[in-house]
Amino acid sequence: MFGFKYYTPTKVVFGKETEIKVAELIHEFGGTKVLIHYGGGSVIRSGLLARVTKCLDEAGIAYITLGGAVPNPHLSLVYEGIELCRKEGVDFLLAVGGGSAIDSAKAIGYGVANEGDVWDFYDYKRQAKGCLPLGVILTIAATGSEMSDSSVITKEEGLVKRGYSSDYCRPRFAILNPELTMTLPDYQTACGCTDIMMHTMERYFTNGGNMEITDSMAEGLLRTVKECAKVLAKDPNNYDARAEVMWAGSLAHNGLTGCGNDGGDWMTHKLEHELGGLYDVAHGAGLAAIWGSWARYVYKNCLPRFKRFALNVMGVANEGSDEEIALRGIEAMEDFYREIKMPTNLRELGVKATDEDLVLMAHKCAVGVNGGMGSARFLREEDMLAIYRMSM
Amino acid sequence: MFGFKYYTPTKVVFGKETEIKVAELIHEFGGTKVLIHYGGGSVIRSGLLARVTKCLDEAGIAYITLGGAVPNPHLSLVYEGIELCRKEGVDFLLAVGGGSAIDSAKAIGYGVANEGDVWDFYDYKRQAKGCLPLGVILTIAATGSEMSDSSVITKEEGLVKRGYSSDYCRPRFAILNPELTMTLPDYQTACGCTDIMMHTMERYFTNGGNMEITDSMAEGLLRTVKECAKVLAKDPNNYDARAEVMWAGSLAHNGLTGCGNDGGDWMTHKLEHELGGLYDVAHGAGLAAIWGSWARYVYKNCLPRFKRFALNVMGVANEGSDEEIALRGIEAMEDFYREIKMPTNLRELGVKATDEDLVLMAHKCAVGVNGGMGSARFLREEDMLAIYRMSM
Repeated sequence: MFGFKYYTPTKVVFGKETEIKVAELIHEFGGTKVLIHYGGGSVIRSGLLARVTKCLDEAGIAYITLGGAVPNPHLSLVYEGIELCRKEGVDFLLAVGGGSAIDSAKAIGYGVANEGDVWDFYDYKRQAKGCLPLGVILTIAATGSEMSDSSVITKEEGLVKRGYSSDYCRPRFAILNPELTMTLPDYQTACGCTDIMMHTMERYFTNGGNMEITDSMAEGLLRTVKECAKVLAKDPNNYDARAEVMWAGSLAHNGLTGCGNDGGDWMTHKLEHELGGLYDVAHGAGLAAIWGSWARYVYKNCLPRFKRFALNVMGVANEGSDEEIALRGIEAMEDFYREIKMPTNLRELGVKATDEDLVLMAHKCAVGVNGGMGSARFLREEDMLAIYRMSM
Repeated sequence: MFGFKYYTPTKVVFGKETEIKVAELIHEFGGTKVLIHYGGGSVIRSGLLARVTKCLDEAGIAYITLGGAVPNPHLSLVYEGIELCRKEGVDFLLAVGGGSAIDSAKAIGYGVANEGDVWDFYDYKRQAKGCLPLGVILTIAATGSEMSDSSVITKEEGLVKRGYSSDYCRPRFAILNPELTMTLPDYQTACGCTDIMMHTMERYFTNGGNMEITDSMAEGLLRTVKECAKVLAKDPNNYDARAEVMWAGSLAHNGLTGCGNDGGDWMTHKLEHELGGLYDVAHGAGLAAIWGSWARYVYKNCLPRFKRFALNVMGVANEGSDEEIALRGIEAMEDFYREIKMPTNLRELGVKATDEDLVLMAHKCAVGVNGGMGSARFLREEDMLAIYRMSM
């Protein structure tokens, strides 16, 4: 096992109607002039935005608003937000929404707190030295961005999707009210559950440094989300299942489920990022469409973990060779994806890619990871292309 | 399930030789004049204190030292520490040791940051409004105080042992090097494992608000510590087992394993606190000596949880009635205590209490919880006395 750093300073306030604590929390963390950043009109239609601004009005906290954060959030809106914050003297960011609004807010925070082009950080050119403080009211359980150190932004020019991570952008607080996620379309709920599980699976399928306590908690989280995703596919208003999934979403990506390992694999995410950049597919669905092909390509190089996953998460019988057990675990995971109506290949995802498209994605993906990456199996450009081809 | 707050701002730096990062971390959190607080001479004999002061010297960070924190740390030393900090202008506390040094440092921090008698907080008379920032280099995995919001202090006059909790005292950083725990006597290692498991068991045995994700992580933590405690009883220098136990100690008491429940039971701790106050027994051993009697007294009122514990933590067979399964789980836990040489009653603990002593402890315990407490079963003074008598 390896040494690690674990840092999750985000104050989580979890439960029904917790959004009414927003003014108190902004005050606690020193905000006096707030940019409320959100995505589409759903937070307006649901009345959430009005409830939030009412709280701020009553507390005498000044604010401005900026909507428009889209899935795979765009750099152009980030630039707009940075300019707005500077002009208006904003000292605190409040993201109201899911991962898109949060990631976009994080990028705005980097831009305000640092000189020069914020894209430099996402383009691996230099490191940020700070970020404007940020709070979150979460409406979609998925990316874990409400506690994580990461954000992902898409540069429209060339459709380049890149992530940047630093502790500076970890939100000061996260308000998690499971009821706010009940109006999500079933497809988005299933995408969220897929994303949540994948954040922990990326940390789980490694060839180095695993700790038993980390594994056992990761497996408990994965079993919980798997069962709750099936409940929510039939009963979207089940509060308990919504709550389990929402809390799992934060824990799956705050570092807890990777303590002691070598940093994780992360190639399913990297392969999906190229899909998301080119085709603007839902992130969770993209992950599901790639994972099975990735898993079949790499499992022999990481057999003990795939066997353990099959037994402890998917609950397959402990019979046959390790390879047989591992493969049955992969099949069971794909069955689960089908049960919650997630795709298991690019066709089902609705991506009609030519072989030239796959070659281009593999090349961009390889460039994005400086030639190669992966712990379950180290993948180079030709491996990435092979997995894309398997996933057609 | 209930709403909850989850706040664990402590930056954890985990692994071999991590203590060399102490100056960097103190600097990061703004410390310029440090009180290094420790317990007995073990940190001197091991050379750890010298390594720490060398790091501070090289970084140009001023410090003074105060040793003498004993198990069930004393209020008199806390007063001495407060006076010393005020006189020397200390702005950061560094606890080097286990729960005693950390809890004592937390109390010193409260005393420096607030006017009036620091005992008022522990005596439920008023709330603290702040605490001097605190860092930890941990040498004993047990209390979880390195990430927790709680501290326990004993007032020598009348031997009154009381805990006080607030977010103010959560350490800014915790340096966790499992190697530093390898020189512990076997008895203390076993006491630590018992304490760690009990912090999660107190949260687990409840009659309200459980979440599946919390339960599954709690069970994973308990299974891990149980197995590693057995490994360490035979092989105290096993790094991996030391690391699992050390990380479990922090997670068991930082709030993670209670998210969504009603706050937990905590009566085993309360019953032990009176033991610890009167007889100065090791906290972990005291918990083991009480738990079996507590469990047999309350299990019928919390049967689903005791059954689940028996199956998922102790691994007993799913055969017979729920009561039979629950009782086999309690027996298996006592067998585990015997295997790691922990007592399962007061006699084995070495406490020769008269019935008058038990009556006095039950009375003090009841007063300490304002008459009654407990989630698995609500206990009043007569119940506490009955459990003390069962534990003889």
